[in-house]
Amino acid sequence: MNSIDKLSEIFGRFPGIGPRQAKRFVYFLLSRNGNYASELTKAIQDLKKEIIQCEECMRFFVYPEHGRGAKVCSICADDTRDSSMLMIVPRDIDFEAVEKSGGYKGYYFILGGVVPILEKEPEKRIRIKELEARIKKSKNIKEIILAMNANLDGENTAEFIKQKYEGLPLEFSTLGRGLSTGAELEYADPETLKNAFLHRTK
Amino acid sequence: MNSIDKLSEIFGRFPGIGPRQAKRFVYFLLSRNGNYASELTKAIQDLKKEIIQCEECMRFFVYPEHGRGAKVCSICADDTRDSSMLMIVPRDIDFEAVEKSGGYKGYYFILGGVVPILEKEPEKRIRIKELEARIKKSKNIKEIILAMNANLDGENTAEFIKQKYEGLPLEFSTLGRGLSTGAELEYADPETLKNAFLHRTK
Amino acid sequence: MNSIDKLSEIFGRFPGIGPRQAKRFVYFLLSRNGNYASELTKAIQDLKKEIIQCEECMRFFVYPEHGRGAKVCSICADDTRDSSMLMIVPRDIDFEAVEKSGGYKGYYFILGGVVPILEKEPEKRIRIKELEARIKKSKNIKEIILAMNANLDGENTAEFIKQKYEGLPLEFSTLGRGLSTGAELEYADPETLKNAFLHRTK
Amino acid sequence: MNSIDKLSEIFGRFPGIGPRQAKRFVYFLLSRNGNYASELTKAIQDLKKEIIQCEECMRFFVYPEHGRGAKVCSICADDTRDSSMLMIVPRDIDFEAVEKSGGYKGYYFILGGVVPILEKEPEKRIRIKELEARIKKSKNIKEIILAMNANLDGENTAEFIKQKYEGLPLEFSTLGRGLSTGAELEYADPETLKNAFLHRTK
Repeated sequence: MNSIDKLSEIFGRFPGIGPRQAKRFVYFLLSRNGNYASELTKAIQDLKKEIIQCEECMRFFVYPEHGRGAKVCSICADDTRDSSMLMIVPRDIDFEAVEKSGGYKGYYFILGGVVPILEKEPEKRIRIKELEARIKKSKNIKEIILAMNANLDGENTAEFIKQKYEGLPLEFSTLGRGLSTGAELEYADPETLKNAFLHRTK
Repeated sequence: MNSIDKLSEIFGRFPGIGPRQAKRFVYFLLSRNGNYASELTKAIQDLKKEIIQCEECMRFFVYPEHGRGAKVCSICADDTRDSSMLMIVPRDIDFEAVEKSGGYKGYYFILGGVVPILEKEPEKRIRIKELEARIKKSKNIKEIILAMNANLDGENTAEFIKQKYEGLPLEFSTLGRGLSTGAELEYADPETLKNAFLHRTK
Repeated sequence: MNSIDKLSEIFGRFPGIGPRQAKRFVYFLLSRNGNYASELTKAIQDLKKEIIQCEECMRFFVYPEHGRGAKVCSICADDTRDSSMLMIVPRDIDFEAVEKSGGYKGYYFILGGVVPILEKEPEKRIRIKELEARIKKSKNIKEIILAMNANLDGENTAEFIKQKYEGLPLEFSTLGRGLSTGAELEYADPETLKNAFLHRTK
Repeated sequence: MNSIDKLSEIFGRFPGIGPRQAKRFVYFLLSRNGNYASELTKAIQDLKKEIIQCEECMRFFVYPEHGRGAKVCSICADDTRDSSMLMIVPRDIDFEAVEKSGGYKGYYFILGGVVPILEKEPEKRIRIKELEARIKKSKNIKEIILAMNANLDGENTAEFIKQKYEGLPLEFSTLGRGLSTGAELEYADPETLKNAFLHRTK
């Protein structure tokens, strides 16, 4: 395989990228001068050097972001957050979305994926051991918020975790269903409408 | 204007139909035999004969749907529903969606439209007099649910109605915001995520 | 079935209209005053009265469009057009598109449909008898242009007609393939590119 | 800027990639083990080492593709092709599409871009000097095929090149317009229909 095909093949494994766009990326790199490619390879190498995974929430962060030298991210290291709540999200990018929304002040755990329906080996899909360690470590957790996408895989993942920890003195919650911004009644499904009514704001 | 153009023009006023599709409708009618067109005109004429507008909720219904002869639809005529709640929806089709979802057991009022932002004559857009009459008539109403689409016009309409009835001993509520079925955290807006957290289900 | 459901069902048979949009049409009619529905039924009835099908090309036209009283449309009645060419198009709307483009000055025949691949009774799908009559009638035709959509059904229809008239002293042609306006080389299929090269303009 | 943001910014300059997808790429890289990132950086470095630009047609190719050691690609080095024709295409990926289609057997020149309408410095957008050198070098060229996208920029580029070489004993051609594969008469623009008729195949 020549290097055009090789690099196309690697770009083609990027999320959401098909073979045609992968090839466009390669020709784009070729058409830029050498500096651009050097800049790109350097940034990829720096990424692997500078970014470490938080020992507590498992998210990737820039080391040492908070100047303490520990392998713990700035959020997990922040004592002022609410230690009674742990929110479990599937991926780093979901964590970013929730944290940016500004409504939540507890801690997080990045599950690393979801458990699809009928998955036979769920523990290979998500960081279940790391989650167990995280929960054991912190004695203050009272509520675990299972912040999953509002689809079948999300619901299955939430169900899987709940069953895993049945019996522990923990309260589980899931994100509220209702009308997303922009939603129209006419096109909303019954489940969403029912919840929108139940969770109405007075 | 010949009758092809005339009928195209009328179909072109249907919601969501552009000139090209309007013309396809006309040719579709032409290509079907005469029975089809007769069937269509008969159904339109029957519609105007059989369907009346409920005096209370203003929705269109088949007369006499519930065998009582009054100009009141089967829902407004149903004494077993919860008379402490009145849900205001923009259009008949929104009423259908909510009623089908099965979560709500009170009464309805069909507003007939929404009040767009910066609208100078809101009373021309919605059935405000009829709403006033409806509210006065029923002494039991305690809560008015403003069931609007989760967009700017919907919010503006809810705000307009609330201000109109300020001072009356009525509680106003709006539909709960949260994750619609299928929503993904990554693509949810901050408002939706904040509400999904606030309205989480335990 | 009540008249809302009945009319929804009829609108639902319109090309490209699903059950939900069909219902929106019904509520749209209900929400307009009576004049609108009368205007619509009148236009449908006028359509059936005023529009007749041309005996020669089979297209629908306003009678008597050209003031001659014959059951022949203005194009078939126009002696100045080129009688050596007959263009066969699938539907009235295709005829309109070609005639508007202004490049063609011969006569037309509206086939009334296409012959899908594997169709067992092609003669039920298209006006094959009428086409035969049309071809016999005019002694001057030298070229038949099979103006079909550039897809499998179009090609199959062209093939079907060609075989039907094999042996007759007629030349058959099909529309030229090449780059449609807006087409990009990168996304063009090999067939299109090959033809674009073959039919290049000097 | 930390390395997550830096790499996001670089990926964000890839064609068709917005900030959100750029970030997904970064998290994708982080979530894969170290080998993947090494494989990617190696492939990028190899690309810059192995791929050179053909001195004649300016396309990127794997050196030495054809075992001759010259800085000339396998197509430009192929004496059996038709030296009377030179096809000018905007980009490498357009060359690939045309060559794959199999219809053309002459030589190519990759222009490196297009000249947008109203561009004040066209010579900065395309390889005009290299084109001049290429044309001078080969005495056999009789026809130059301006194989541009069928849009305004494509037409403008073709026009620009034609004017540039006015007076030279060269024939210019452009790709044929007509129905692209899949095109439907109803939706085709007048220009396309006119050309489809003119270039009909007998």
